[in-house]
Amino acid sequence: MKASRHGGKTMYIIIVYDIAVERIDNVRKYLKQYLNWVQNSAFEGELTEGELEKIKINLKKLIKEAEDSILVYAASDKKWVTKEVLGIEKSEVTTII
Amino acid sequence: MKASRHGGKTMYIIIVYDIAVERIDNVRKYLKQYLNWVQNSAFEGELTEGELEKIKINLKKLIKEAEDSILVYAASDKKWVTKEVLGIEKSEVTTII
Repeated sequence: MKASRHGGKTMYIIIVYDIAVERIDNVRKYLKQYLNWVQNSAFEGELTEGELEKIKINLKKLIKEAEDSILVYAASDKKWVTKEVLGIEKSEVTTII
Repeated sequence: MKASRHGGKTMYIIIVYDIAVERIDNVRKYLKQYLNWVQNSAFEGELTEGELEKIKINLKKLIKEAEDSILVYAASDKKWVTKEVLGIEKSEVTTII
């Protein structure tokens, strides 16, 4: 986790978005503070309930709700969701040689 | 569910992809047979274990694994995952007036 914790129990979050090009950079910069960028249009990671509420409020400020779309999937624990990657696995940290 | 069931218990599936434009239509056409297209780069729905295994095998045939990326998230039951939409909610079936 990159951001400090506040507010409630931790949840596992997947965020998938379809956002106009003029707003996408701001949304990504914002989400990168809290979650891992796992694919071009997807972030995932763990957030507290308080963080998630704050993030949803701020995302609504960064998008145009009539034009953009963000899906927020949440599980109460990471153990309920398995993940498999077909093809390229994006990594922010390592460089694929 | 659009496709016939075979093979094992039902799971809740979210598929998120980042695929080259020349292959995207084939991937979407294929996934539409089994899942709901919920956002430009995302499908979700329920599949049996057998269907999911078949779909993963066929997706690998439709993509270039060195260039494309597909994330497959699975929960053993839909009840473990909540979904919230910020902005536009895509719908294949209904027309928003």
